[in-house]
Amino acid sequence: MNYKIKDLSLANDGKKQIEWAEMHMPTLLEIRKRFEAEKPLKGVNISAVLHVTKETAALVKTLKMGGAEVALAASNPLSTQDEVAAALVTEGISVFAWRGESESEYYNNIESIVKIHEPHIVMDDGADLHAFVHEKMSSELKVFGGTEETTTGVIRLRAMEKQGVLKYPVIAVNNAYTKYLFDNRYGTGQSAIDGIIRATNILLAGKVAVVAGYGWVGRGIANRLRGLGARVIVTEVDPIRALEAVMDGFDVMPISEASRIGDIFVTATGNTKVIRVEHMLNMKNGAILANAGHFNVEIDVKGLKESAVSVRNIRPYVDEYVLQNGKKIYLLAEGRLVNLAAAEGHPSEVMDMSFANQALAVEYLVKNKGKLQNKVYNMPIELDYEVARIKLKSIGVQIDELTEEQKGYLEQWKSGT
Amino acid sequence: MNYKIKDLSLANDGKKQIEWAEMHMPTLLEIRKRFEAEKPLKGVNISAVLHVTKETAALVKTLKMGGAEVALAASNPLSTQDEVAAALVTEGISVFAWRGESESEYYNNIESIVKIHEPHIVMDDGADLHAFVHEKMSSELKVFGGTEETTTGVIRLRAMEKQGVLKYPVIAVNNAYTKYLFDNRYGTGQSAIDGIIRATNILLAGKVAVVAGYGWVGRGIANRLRGLGARVIVTEVDPIRALEAVMDGFDVMPISEASRIGDIFVTATGNTKVIRVEHMLNMKNGAILANAGHFNVEIDVKGLKESAVSVRNIRPYVDEYVLQNGKKIYLLAEGRLVNLAAAEGHPSEVMDMSFANQALAVEYLVKNKGKLQNKVYNMPIELDYEVARIKLKSIGVQIDELTEEQKGYLEQWKSGT
Amino acid sequence: MNYKIKDLSLANDGKKQIEWAEMHMPTLLEIRKRFEAEKPLKGVNISAVLHVTKETAALVKTLKMGGAEVALAASNPLSTQDEVAAALVTEGISVFAWRGESESEYYNNIESIVKIHEPHIVMDDGADLHAFVHEKMSSELKVFGGTEETTTGVIRLRAMEKQGVLKYPVIAVNNAYTKYLFDNRYGTGQSAIDGIIRATNILLAGKVAVVAGYGWVGRGIANRLRGLGARVIVTEVDPIRALEAVMDGFDVMPISEASRIGDIFVTATGNTKVIRVEHMLNMKNGAILANAGHFNVEIDVKGLKESAVSVRNIRPYVDEYVLQNGKKIYLLAEGRLVNLAAAEGHPSEVMDMSFANQALAVEYLVKNKGKLQNKVYNMPIELDYEVARIKLKSIGVQIDELTEEQKGYLEQWKSGT
Amino acid sequence: MNYKIKDLSLANDGKKQIEWAEMHMPTLLEIRKRFEAEKPLKGVNISAVLHVTKETAALVKTLKMGGAEVALAASNPLSTQDEVAAALVTEGISVFAWRGESESEYYNNIESIVKIHEPHIVMDDGADLHAFVHEKMSSELKVFGGTEETTTGVIRLRAMEKQGVLKYPVIAVNNAYTKYLFDNRYGTGQSAIDGIIRATNILLAGKVAVVAGYGWVGRGIANRLRGLGARVIVTEVDPIRALEAVMDGFDVMPISEASRIGDIFVTATGNTKVIRVEHMLNMKNGAILANAGHFNVEIDVKGLKESAVSVRNIRPYVDEYVLQNGKKIYLLAEGRLVNLAAAEGHPSEVMDMSFANQALAVEYLVKNKGKLQNKVYNMPIELDYEVARIKLKSIGVQIDELTEEQKGYLEQWKSGT
Repeated sequence: MNYKIKDLSLANDGKKQIEWAEMHMPTLLEIRKRFEAEKPLKGVNISAVLHVTKETAALVKTLKMGGAEVALAASNPLSTQDEVAAALVTEGISVFAWRGESESEYYNNIESIVKIHEPHIVMDDGADLHAFVHEKMSSELKVFGGTEETTTGVIRLRAMEKQGVLKYPVIAVNNAYTKYLFDNRYGTGQSAIDGIIRATNILLAGKVAVVAGYGWVGRGIANRLRGLGARVIVTEVDPIRALEAVMDGFDVMPISEASRIGDIFVTATGNTKVIRVEHMLNMKNGAILANAGHFNVEIDVKGLKESAVSVRNIRPYVDEYVLQNGKKIYLLAEGRLVNLAAAEGHPSEVMDMSFANQALAVEYLVKNKGKLQNKVYNMPIELDYEVARIKLKSIGVQIDELTEEQKGYLEQWKSGT
Repeated sequence: MNYKIKDLSLANDGKKQIEWAEMHMPTLLEIRKRFEAEKPLKGVNISAVLHVTKETAALVKTLKMGGAEVALAASNPLSTQDEVAAALVTEGISVFAWRGESESEYYNNIESIVKIHEPHIVMDDGADLHAFVHEKMSSELKVFGGTEETTTGVIRLRAMEKQGVLKYPVIAVNNAYTKYLFDNRYGTGQSAIDGIIRATNILLAGKVAVVAGYGWVGRGIANRLRGLGARVIVTEVDPIRALEAVMDGFDVMPISEASRIGDIFVTATGNTKVIRVEHMLNMKNGAILANAGHFNVEIDVKGLKESAVSVRNIRPYVDEYVLQNGKKIYLLAEGRLVNLAAAEGHPSEVMDMSFANQALAVEYLVKNKGKLQNKVYNMPIELDYEVARIKLKSIGVQIDELTEEQKGYLEQWKSGT
Repeated sequence: MNYKIKDLSLANDGKKQIEWAEMHMPTLLEIRKRFEAEKPLKGVNISAVLHVTKETAALVKTLKMGGAEVALAASNPLSTQDEVAAALVTEGISVFAWRGESESEYYNNIESIVKIHEPHIVMDDGADLHAFVHEKMSSELKVFGGTEETTTGVIRLRAMEKQGVLKYPVIAVNNAYTKYLFDNRYGTGQSAIDGIIRATNILLAGKVAVVAGYGWVGRGIANRLRGLGARVIVTEVDPIRALEAVMDGFDVMPISEASRIGDIFVTATGNTKVIRVEHMLNMKNGAILANAGHFNVEIDVKGLKESAVSVRNIRPYVDEYVLQNGKKIYLLAEGRLVNLAAAEGHPSEVMDMSFANQALAVEYLVKNKGKLQNKVYNMPIELDYEVARIKLKSIGVQIDELTEEQKGYLEQWKSGT
Repeated sequence: MNYKIKDLSLANDGKKQIEWAEMHMPTLLEIRKRFEAEKPLKGVNISAVLHVTKETAALVKTLKMGGAEVALAASNPLSTQDEVAAALVTEGISVFAWRGESESEYYNNIESIVKIHEPHIVMDDGADLHAFVHEKMSSELKVFGGTEETTTGVIRLRAMEKQGVLKYPVIAVNNAYTKYLFDNRYGTGQSAIDGIIRATNILLAGKVAVVAGYGWVGRGIANRLRGLGARVIVTEVDPIRALEAVMDGFDVMPISEASRIGDIFVTATGNTKVIRVEHMLNMKNGAILANAGHFNVEIDVKGLKESAVSVRNIRPYVDEYVLQNGKKIYLLAEGRLVNLAAAEGHPSEVMDMSFANQALAVEYLVKNKGKLQNKVYNMPIELDYEVARIKLKSIGVQIDELTEEQKGYLEQWKSGT
């Protein structure tokens, strides 16, 4: 087996981490039990680009127990947990990932996982692997299906579909209700703030926090910041979302205004250059900048570096930039995903649902091989419900069931007031 | 002109109420200004079944200023504001509605508004009028379009569409983002609790409140109850919504369990017999029951009446039922919509958006007469955004705009990490 | 028996109201049961100035069942519930109170209740009665003790004590933990907002609300406004309270600034002219003003009346003032306590605790007649705990008890890390 | 100079940490500026037992700049930041502290700082140093004053005062409003949860969290847990606090019941053996236990160790105990203060206020040398206000001032309704 990781001797630590994660991922483990018995992925090669964390390990082990061969690279140069990578190698997974990859190493690793075997399924988080397969690989692809974990990746894949260049069907795992309603909101909501606090140890109570973007990630972060005592300002480009933020009790204004009064700024838009040097020059001395969006483009780090008078690292994940106006601003984790870089990423409990969807999506692609078009498909709703049902059961929550009379009531339209 | 109301001499009071509402409905007034100039509804007869409130008056006046003839009946026997009905008559609207209609009066009034003129557009809130038109009217309908305001009504209309019996295109105004994300959640959320407090004057802090249903209405109510200090239990039949309620920090359990520990119960499911006598027998002495769903079927009032030992009215909108086990339970507003019966219904500010959508939906149906199929259509998204933009402007909130670079970024899929 | 009320024929309605209140006042009823058996107040004349509400009725009935003779007047010209006054008369209480008293009627009624019998105990809410007794009554007072219900009243009484003019011992019932931590915060918090919503029916979600004062009442109101979706600004004169408000996530600024951006203003300071004409001239068109403090002096109503161009009543409890700059502002309940004037005052559940304290305070004064000095006393802590224990039991909440080892631990100082 | 620390070469890292802290401690820095100019502590020897963190460094440097000689030991064996200790030594402070002291090392270090110089002022956090000075030192003490930082320590000192053994006046810095209302509630509230998340990375949304104790620390933690989506149960022994927790919307029950349903347990009572083995045996498999109280006695760790079948460390600060019933429970940070052991302790912003009080308390003791009795004094209120005023100014918040008319109003008692 081929692999490239930091240090194989970390495997024992990694195993305990994975054990800890699995204890909090009962849904995936329930699916694993079935996979182990039924081997539905037998003979399937999977190339996966995902954050190499203890939760991903639980997924990859599940796929393997289901019969698949898996090769894994990182979806972010800073997010790999090296001890987990080591543990996975001892489990027979071809891992090419380590914390702190350079940009060329990052792309080399992606290349490695599609060279080591001919992938049948491509699993991605951000669509860099999908883009690579489409741009760099020869036309005789064996790939018969893909999955995508993020909003950002789905947007890219829909653009590919629209341009007619998509070469295989892709399940937008991100669009499963049991994924985006939970992972993005509760998972990133908590872990982004965890990253900010670990990096800075600042008190959130009494601070003015600016959240750029009021999608599921943004509203998760805004709510958690409020839950910790901050006064929260939201910036948006979408008038409906802006109105929701207003009705949710947040202050809404353009970033040009918000930049003057914020103490902390968190981007979660999925777009580029949301906070630019012109805004940074408005900011208070001591302002803190963090990104919770998938790519490190939301804060204009390049512009900041070019225009700053000086830079120094003051604490792990905290760089101090002195601007030309003499004010100091603090950039966390170089503008990369703050929850993965400065903390441990999503808690296992939400990845449990996201990755239960991934496992079921892969099984679905195998079962429906040849029956799907080269399009982006939403997660089949019955699988989505399956995940919810297993999750509720695993945490001991019971719910009601419709009576026959109630089922009938929902289907008729004649009786009224 | 024909009309049937309680007392025309209340018109002056009604006018002041409408003035107060219009002050809080800037979006609708902006549209009215244009309607008055362009007269897009000239020659159109509209038959409308809506709650006859000060906000509906603002809508109906807008339609009339746009050129339409309007006949109006009530969508609930208990929700009419008699002084508003009077004021509308003096404005030239044919109103058939009063507070406290009997069931036969209710249906007679619906009949009156389709007899007084041949309707071209049918506007409804709950689909009783749509059902009436489909069941009772001759085949040579002049109706070329309809609108529907509620979730419940849209479910009924989709059932009609599915059965192939729908006779004209209907715009599901309820499904506009600027309607259901706001009206159902913030509007009913606040006003249902307002109704409960007006009826009972109980302290919510420290109470255990049970909310049946975690749709937009249910989550609005659950959040407001929590915001007022109650401990909230949610019941659901949908596992995904149940999981959301859990993650939002609510306790989730079946109604059979919740019935034992709740102090207050509020239904918001859109379904029938959600709280049954078997549950009431579980309840604590003094338990309070209210309904926030469209129809008075969610609490089994009939079953309660049949099984109770005695009934008396103890305060306006509060009936005391003594059960066979000797315990007393208190039913608010006879199980009808508590926010409309015991309070004033939705605040003007949310009806502003809902009714701006109604006005634009009617204009759209007129403009697209003959081009639409006999289906239920979602509100066109560009009109939805138009409502949001006017609303934001009217409350003085500015938002960001995408830069050209950002627009480009959202359309491309190649650049990554 | 002597009395002066609106209409004795309302007594039946009043009795049902009192029954409803008593159902939510289990603590007071527990004490009543003992009073009825022990008659600790036999031969004691009590003159009481309190809001004449269904909850006060439950207290007054309890005192009477304990053996006292009670004469009752209103502590606010607008807060009397006439049906309750009627019911109390039929129970043998000398009531002098009706809704809508003039200022001279208000003081005449106070005079009546000290003339109808020679009071031994003076029970007050705001200290108007205490002031009257001190200023207007002859020196041979029979009064041997008093109680006071409000923060405002306690401040006045402490001023009297400081000036050496206090003529009898007073128990500051307001200062009982089971009073001010609950009544002021949760009771006024909810009911003040109830009053505002009943008067205006505005949507709180998305509004900017300004709360003047961050004492227990102010923080109750600020939290409830936030719980209903408003963005809340706090104004304060005390730097420590201001800092708490900041850390609680509120925006804090001077009223001169807040007046420019608020949609709703609520005063809760206990001080005079907190919102002045100079601030009103800053306000947005349509701004709403309400008072939740004891006296109608917090908003400068007199200044407003003098400087306004015109005034009209637009809805019950809502007066529209057109200012000289053309803008309209809306004053609720003439600047009087909005929760009592426009709604029903505190919910029974908090009055249960406050009035349980009143009952125990009166009993304490009788038991300790002649042993106390002419000072303002805090509520004895053991009575305070007694109220808490009965309340918890009555709502079915069990708590832990210290083990012997734990009691010992709290008393020693030697063992450490 | 004498000192005993881990590694002097860490000093540069420590200096950056202190710089970061000082940036968030503007109140203390304002006082430092004055101390540097006035040297009010000239010739004063201070022995201090405090958590050796970057914030404490900012205080100790301030005292030194004010003219004092300072010797410092740790108030907890696990809370020392070694790089900060190193930096302080280079600043001329005699530090005796390192992370991971044994119990005997802990007491030896305390002994060292009272031997290295004859202390005039004793500054403590938990009262171990005060106890040591009283128990172990000869009678000719030079100490003329002390300060105490914690609730726990003040309780011990009051016990000493009550027993008549206190040998010098102590300022209860903990009792300053600008300390306990902020540090305990917002500081521990955030940092305890930070510690739990760093140790476990669990998702709080949807979890059942049990908080033992509803003092300022407990309510801070309960609120933050709720703000992060947990459902929170409170346990208490005090009925008034229990009632507050109920009214704040929390579920309240005895620990014997709560232990059956909680996922996470946090103790904050200041008492001993609050969670005992009998409760642990009730717990769900996977339950997590953390302590936020000053001493490691709240969870019965000794009992747990004795009765457990096996123990292993699974992640840093997470020990897995297998109970005799086969269930696994997870103890964080060995039951020590989770915010200091597993995270960085209080954020600088709250320590800013606490330590501004410490600095002013020391100055007050020096100024009033010989004038105070051997008692526990509350922090003088004017110093408390001084801290609040400087803090507000430093974060740019302006507040109102009383007008002359308002000052007069508060002092009179005659005018009423």
